[in-house]
Amino acid sequence: MSNVSLRSIRSHFFGGATTQVQGLPVQDRTVAGGTARPVDMNGTYSVGQMYAMHYALAQPRFPLPVLLWHGGGMTGAQWEATPDGRPGWLWGLLEAGFDVWVCDAPERGRASWAMFPEIYPSAPIFRSHEEAWDVFRVGPAGGYPGASHADTQFPVEHFDQFARQFVPRWLDHNEMALAAYDELIAAVGPCIVLGHSQGGGHAGHAALRHPDLVRAVVTVEPTGMPIPIPAAASPADTPQLMLWGDYLDRSPLWSTYRQSAEAYVQALRERGAPVTVLDLPAVGVHGNSHACMSDRNSDEVLAHIVAWLSATSSRSSRLSQPLEK
Amino acid sequence: MSNVSLRSIRSHFFGGATTQVQGLPVQDRTVAGGTARPVDMNGTYSVGQMYAMHYALAQPRFPLPVLLWHGGGMTGAQWEATPDGRPGWLWGLLEAGFDVWVCDAPERGRASWAMFPEIYPSAPIFRSHEEAWDVFRVGPAGGYPGASHADTQFPVEHFDQFARQFVPRWLDHNEMALAAYDELIAAVGPCIVLGHSQGGGHAGHAALRHPDLVRAVVTVEPTGMPIPIPAAASPADTPQLMLWGDYLDRSPLWSTYRQSAEAYVQALRERGAPVTVLDLPAVGVHGNSHACMSDRNSDEVLAHIVAWLSATSSRSSRLSQPLEK
Repeated sequence: MSNVSLRSIRSHFFGGATTQVQGLPVQDRTVAGGTARPVDMNGTYSVGQMYAMHYALAQPRFPLPVLLWHGGGMTGAQWEATPDGRPGWLWGLLEAGFDVWVCDAPERGRASWAMFPEIYPSAPIFRSHEEAWDVFRVGPAGGYPGASHADTQFPVEHFDQFARQFVPRWLDHNEMALAAYDELIAAVGPCIVLGHSQGGGHAGHAALRHPDLVRAVVTVEPTGMPIPIPAAASPADTPQLMLWGDYLDRSPLWSTYRQSAEAYVQALRERGAPVTVLDLPAVGVHGNSHACMSDRNSDEVLAHIVAWLSATSSRSSRLSQPLEK
Repeated sequence: MSNVSLRSIRSHFFGGATTQVQGLPVQDRTVAGGTARPVDMNGTYSVGQMYAMHYALAQPRFPLPVLLWHGGGMTGAQWEATPDGRPGWLWGLLEAGFDVWVCDAPERGRASWAMFPEIYPSAPIFRSHEEAWDVFRVGPAGGYPGASHADTQFPVEHFDQFARQFVPRWLDHNEMALAAYDELIAAVGPCIVLGHSQGGGHAGHAALRHPDLVRAVVTVEPTGMPIPIPAAASPADTPQLMLWGDYLDRSPLWSTYRQSAEAYVQALRERGAPVTVLDLPAVGVHGNSHACMSDRNSDEVLAHIVAWLSATSSRSSRLSQPLEK
């Protein structure tokens, strides 16, 4: 690994609003040691903001930054290291010469969450290790903790380390996330969005909401894509790469998600948008789980993405414009 | 600002355990768009882990890393930037030549939290803007949003940006946090711990629990210090700096906290430990809130800490030992 020289590392919060909570009774609580502590939680709260950490290179080789958007029930930590302790895609993208923004969408990680039902109307849900084993295609449903897919690239013996990344999630916060990402994009300006899973869906929506600013989209096994594409949307200029791992046909869940994503690809192509679909097994890269940034061959997968970004940047003036800082 | 050259940026999770949840009914939930989704949350969960982001310099000037431990209801984001958008102490410490670990204690930020009452016995509490105005000594109790202390260094017009950093907290998780910090320290090895508020208390406890590895402690307006100091503890070799801001005498809450911290300082000195108490107003630095890393003069306050660390490192062989990596 080479060193990376940075001119700034700084986090920001974007979006959200303030809201009021009134009428709560004052609670009689005790703190450690048994001291009584009355707790009055009535008052003003921030809600709906997101968190983003900005890594700005001293000498970026590409003019546009990459915004990393995590999947559902995850945070930006998924980009920072692999479960087996290697550098994550954050480091790889910095080494490749991109400025990077690592994001936590509203409700999770450093973006914080708000009390329910007083502010959020619904309760969160939690993903068990058993469910994750299936959702991330480490192995078949019911296979946790012993049965993984043969030749998987997922570092199975570090599954517990991976599971420590999980955070609770809400089922009805997509619009909250998109509104915060709107603010992020408005602040950052022209950018490349790289989204995983639910974050891939958010990236697809953001590309339609900001066709002027989102100059390229990379989705890794996206869910929740904007399909049908609204009639008024103009996605034609935005190059998109959609990447898929292995074992999709062994998962009813992922077969369905893939089908939905294919409909989105088809609709984009009908609008004239340049979409590349990369099935890793089709290019000889086998064994990837749903979390290919966490797999043993994460560097190899990222190399495919960086190669596409490089080629796309050299072709598109919208991606190779001079730095505006 | 100068550039900073890093050889690695990588996050880690430490501590915690897995636990089981059984007997929950399967919920009938709906996702965005109205699709029915049964949710079965029975299964295995990770609980009690902490998150830590490690920034490793290409050429550190000091042999020991600084571990940054946030305050109650906060995350590591408090060290990454100021509410008025300047670089935080993270960047300042990297510029000064220290490797840095930015931590989220269990239950908050990227460390995640667990369902209650099934896993955590109690419910979280939430800090309103009104309470924070008082707790952080931006202004007098009841002063939110208009009345701030005269000549405060807190960037009052950016209070909302500061409040976006707040996260829910639990009142009975001190031991959970200390256990995770034990694992962090065991993994990092010899280190300097810099803790704010509740994190300062955690730093004080960690210094007693790991007198061999915690080589220096900086506490910024600490609460929850280990007082009385257990008879078996040997804090004599660990240099400690305790730093205080302004307006303490205008706050009954902080007058009490200060008194308790003074008792701890007295007990340390009776054991022969070298403790420096730095009242910022006494050295001509006026107007600091409880969050001096967020104040307008945050760089000036950090300079005092770096000066103390430099002087202490040059005096103590335990702080100036060769790098062991």
